[in-house]
Amino acid sequence: MEKKLILSNVDKEMKIALEKYEEPKDIKRVLSGMRPTGKLHLGNYFGALKPWLELQDRAESFFFIADWHAITTSYQDTRDLAENTVQMMADWLACGLTPEKSTLFVQSWIKEHAELHLLLSMITPVRWLERNPTYKEMMENLKDREIATYGFLGYPVLQTADIVLYDADTVPVGIDQLPHLELSREIVRRFNRFFGELLVEPRPYLSEAPKLPGLDGRKMSKSYGNCIYLSDSKEEVEKKVRSMVTDPARVRKTDPGHPEVCTVYAYHKMFTPEEKVKEIEEACRKGEIGCVQCKKLLAQNINSFLEPIRSKREELLSDRDSLIDIFREGSKRASEIARKKMKEIKKAVNFLV
Amino acid sequence: MEKKLILSNVDKEMKIALEKYEEPKDIKRVLSGMRPTGKLHLGNYFGALKPWLELQDRAESFFFIADWHAITTSYQDTRDLAENTVQMMADWLACGLTPEKSTLFVQSWIKEHAELHLLLSMITPVRWLERNPTYKEMMENLKDREIATYGFLGYPVLQTADIVLYDADTVPVGIDQLPHLELSREIVRRFNRFFGELLVEPRPYLSEAPKLPGLDGRKMSKSYGNCIYLSDSKEEVEKKVRSMVTDPARVRKTDPGHPEVCTVYAYHKMFTPEEKVKEIEEACRKGEIGCVQCKKLLAQNINSFLEPIRSKREELLSDRDSLIDIFREGSKRASEIARKKMKEIKKAVNFLV
Repeated sequence: MEKKLILSNVDKEMKIALEKYEEPKDIKRVLSGMRPTGKLHLGNYFGALKPWLELQDRAESFFFIADWHAITTSYQDTRDLAENTVQMMADWLACGLTPEKSTLFVQSWIKEHAELHLLLSMITPVRWLERNPTYKEMMENLKDREIATYGFLGYPVLQTADIVLYDADTVPVGIDQLPHLELSREIVRRFNRFFGELLVEPRPYLSEAPKLPGLDGRKMSKSYGNCIYLSDSKEEVEKKVRSMVTDPARVRKTDPGHPEVCTVYAYHKMFTPEEKVKEIEEACRKGEIGCVQCKKLLAQNINSFLEPIRSKREELLSDRDSLIDIFREGSKRASEIARKKMKEIKKAVNFLV
Repeated sequence: MEKKLILSNVDKEMKIALEKYEEPKDIKRVLSGMRPTGKLHLGNYFGALKPWLELQDRAESFFFIADWHAITTSYQDTRDLAENTVQMMADWLACGLTPEKSTLFVQSWIKEHAELHLLLSMITPVRWLERNPTYKEMMENLKDREIATYGFLGYPVLQTADIVLYDADTVPVGIDQLPHLELSREIVRRFNRFFGELLVEPRPYLSEAPKLPGLDGRKMSKSYGNCIYLSDSKEEVEKKVRSMVTDPARVRKTDPGHPEVCTVYAYHKMFTPEEKVKEIEEACRKGEIGCVQCKKLLAQNINSFLEPIRSKREELLSDRDSLIDIFREGSKRASEIARKKMKEIKKAVNFLV
């Protein structure tokens, strides 16, 4: 009963946000972040990184490793935080994010994120945060973990600070994050009402990524153990692809298959040339190609895609200092902008600066 | 009914905190702050500044102007924030706080306060903050103001950050702040449990200041308009003392008075030599001294007390840059300690630093 109520609230906030959505034109400055909670998998690549790669060619882009956000939920075990941060640096650069096109930085290296978070916290009503659908859902699902921390309740305030510190006008988001951005816009409007038109109201940019399922057909997620990681070896990929679920109605090779329910087919659509995909589909429906053969082909194609990423990753990680330095350089640039902005903001609030 | 419930909760938290209280021995490092919400009055002097003056002779002392805290409740009007900060600097130094004995600084000039606030927010359960008696009381009393902000809910987290950033072992507080410090100690223990024994658990130091009433006999408070300010002129003091409430049962000079219910008498005990106070008390009870004369004497004594403070204030404010520089110097020293501590903390949490 309660669960139902909560889900209907989620839907409501989401519906409102979706109704308001307009594809932004004249994108000037894009900003987005990613929580360093582990190595990136193919789901992360298609869902977030690929849209970023497109954006860095279109607009001035800021991408940051959101290490503060990483501890909102996993503060009880932060052992891998530093290592995950370095791994994420390698993943990003190996996939094609580049300091020549984007400002790449680490959130916790720029103290102004924490400062602006503190300032915005002063004007944000608690009830705005309590109605955040993600918060409500987490509260419901994670009753056993002591997740109901002050920091977790306030992470949309931190997200708002992340964005407005750089005057970003556009933020690439998934549909589920639309309500957060709506909240950011509300906080910005409230600040501007009190202290003058100083903060830019960010617009969401819905990057329509076709979802890549996990090995078992569910959403690809680390916690389900159904991921292919960008760092997986050739052999690991082959093994994982062999374990993929296919059409359960198909027992023998000669049984006609149903590609629309087959995970392997979903992957072919992302990794295999269109002509070949059609061929496979027809052969499957006619029972002319077996799952083993079909999977072998897929593993080859995924490996062709991953091979350059994999070797670039290894190269980058063989000289960690230089890798980290790329982000230190980016952080220097980000820091200049953030410091200037924060000073303006403090002046507007009448702090003695 | 609800109000009653809330007050009984307040009492409970307070009672727990009072029962736990032990006068701290071997005080090493003291830290306290004051919100710059206006010029200081005599109530502030006796309640907070005087204990600080004693402490700066006993221990390494850190005192800061808590400008972040000033906007927790008054974010809707921050016009006077910078000016109030400067006035507070003058008040402090005029009363005898000195950079030779204490580290004097401005909270918002040290970014690490915001950083540590953010970090501690991640480990502090929301329900710990919701049970804060001051929060509950404010929620009840200020229903009309949009005070229920995220920042206001979290100010005990910021207070905790303020304290532990400097490894302060002792914090001078009034009785009503005991529950806050108890909360700080809980947060510290929780942090240390997760990340190692890195933060010092601060102890409260109850400074027993006899309360100085306002002109009307109620608590001295800016919002009641019943204050004598450190900056009041000789004439203002005389005028204010003339307006003080005395024993209402005494109509004529020859009526016997009751000093124990007289505000003027309460002031004499603070500003007049003991011998003279006894003399006045007896004369009042016998109806041998009139209120006019008694007040005149009090005004003289208050003015004798305030005169050196007043002239020092004016001198300090005649060169605002030098005044502010004293706090810039102090902030530099505070900043070094805070930066080092925050780096240790971030390392312990496994941030890539």
